Amino acid sequence: MNFDEAQVIAMLARVFGGNKRGVEIGIGDDGAVVKTSEKSVISTDVAVEGVHFKTTWSSAFEIGRKITAANLADIYAMGGSPTYLVVAVSLTGDETLEWIEELAEGIAHEANSCGAIVVGGDLAKANCISIAMTAVGKVEQAILRSGAQVGDGIYISSLPGWSAAGLAVIEKDETSDFALHAVSEFCAPTVDYSSAIQFLKANAHSMCDISDALLIQAEQMAKASGVAFKIGQDLIAGHPEFNALNELAISQGIDVWQWIFAGGEDHVFLATGQNLDAFRVGEVVAGAGLIGVEMKKAPDTWRHFQ
Amino acid sequence: MNFDEAQVIAMLARVFGGNKRGVEIGIGDDGAVVKTSEKSVISTDVAVEGVHFKTTWSSAFEIGRKITAANLADIYAMGGSPTYLVVAVSLTGDETLEWIEELAEGIAHEANSCGAIVVGGDLAKANCISIAMTAVGKVEQAILRSGAQVGDGIYISSLPGWSAAGLAVIEKDETSDFALHAVSEFCAPTVDYSSAIQFLKANAHSMCDISDALLIQAEQMAKASGVAFKIGQDLIAGHPEFNALNELAISQGIDVWQWIFAGGEDHVFLATGQNLDAFRVGEVVAGAGLIGVEMKKAPDTWRHFQ
Repeated sequence: MNFDEAQVIAMLARVFGGNKRGVEIGIGDDGAVVKTSEKSVISTDVAVEGVHFKTTWSSAFEIGRKITAANLADIYAMGGSPTYLVVAVSLTGDETLEWIEELAEGIAHEANSCGAIVVGGDLAKANCISIAMTAVGKVEQAILRSGAQVGDGIYISSLPGWSAAGLAVIEKDETSDFALHAVSEFCAPTVDYSSAIQFLKANAHSMCDISDALLIQAEQMAKASGVAFKIGQDLIAGHPEFNALNELAISQGIDVWQWIFAGGEDHVFLATGQNLDAFRVGEVVAGAGLIGVEMKKAPDTWRHFQ
Repeated sequence: MNFDEAQVIAMLARVFGGNKRGVEIGIGDDGAVVKTSEKSVISTDVAVEGVHFKTTWSSAFEIGRKITAANLADIYAMGGSPTYLVVAVSLTGDETLEWIEELAEGIAHEANSCGAIVVGGDLAKANCISIAMTAVGKVEQAILRSGAQVGDGIYISSLPGWSAAGLAVIEKDETSDFALHAVSEFCAPTVDYSSAIQFLKANAHSMCDISDALLIQAEQMAKASGVAFKIGQDLIAGHPEFNALNELAISQGIDVWQWIFAGGEDHVFLATGQNLDAFRVGEVVAGAGLIGVEMKKAPDTWRHFQ
């Protein structure tokens, strides 16, 4: 035991405290009282040590940023904008107060970057560290997975695959710029939240956060919309970052399409619509499922329970 | 592995699904889209196997009820009424699909009893089972811990201590009615949500959910309000359930006040105000801290990190 609960709560109140817009009652009572709009979007995510992150690989600050980014991305992916967060953290008791403070700073950093405020939380003891977070946001017109229309272009906000690439090289002491970028994206992704806002403003017909894998999420959107997603691998290969990712994949003896299609945890936004200001990777056509995806072997999509 | 993720999600959509009031988009997209009022209360709780519950002691249905009750009680304790829940569950992978379904049924049962709707969730793999839940509710006038005024009566919605009593006897094969009631309260507390509503309607000045321990929460309220809480042990001893709890305590060689004052996890509402329709246990006086609490030994309050 490196700390007691009262110390942790006082530290958290310091990191997350202060007068914040819209917050009537923040941390310290049974719940937070906040101003909300007529329509809200709510999303929850849990990240577990050894599954979603490793404390030996990532700093507490990065871990805090990563779980927060995953949560915020879900709100943006619905066409919303995040306002409040609550965090339930399970700790083993072996952490230092400094480590927990860094975790909180990482959460606050990512939240602040989107104007979201941490208004409450819970702490528990467990055999492994896990962080469950819930985001609440305001939304006027939600953008769903089911809105894709035949004739839409398919767009990505950035190139997926960097997080999977980071996972592949993190224990290999690679020092190339590409490898370091990949590791950095794995430890704490850079999410282009502004792309989601642009998709919203441009009246995207459907949108989703690629958190599992491009293939999985594209299939889900196609199914929900009752259409087929025709993906152009040649189009993706034209992405400005493709060559860098491909070079790294070759150096590791890996098919780059495994990372791009099946990687997961990138928090890239996938959207469909007309003339969206993002990178076009295909089109929505009549039919079902995915069309145009060719890989040397079956995609090794990442799933928690396999 | 007794199931795959798709099976679990399909089952959850069945248990929690259906057209529900206020829910524009439920389970299945990146987030839920729901109607919210101008002011919302948000609270989060996490329960961990081996700390808050044991699968060998409690059925999955009871575990689901217990964590949901804890979360709902927090919303009521703020003077709010719960509307939506999201649940992030970490599982080991050794559970059966039936166990998970029972857990979901327990969550849905407790939520339904308050008119709250489960609108989303997340699933992850971990070394131990944990359930993190966030509740969102509507609130007009929040009732805070800090509102106690000198001259207020202090009231409890029911007698705390039963959950601690249950924990004390659960492995002892006690078969008396009192012991069975205690075990039942430990496994899945019966929370008198209507008391919280009555406290609200009666303009209680302060309110709190006794989830840690009566002593801890009374101290917190006294401190937040800048007053002293004068507790009458003789008043508590007049509670209709006191003799039953005391008899059970004597049979276990335990000081009943340990359970009542230091037990925790009862989710009894503690409130102050004038002529509230609940059981009166003391009064708010000028000063600081707790007055009138005498125990044979220092209270053994339950804390996660000790």
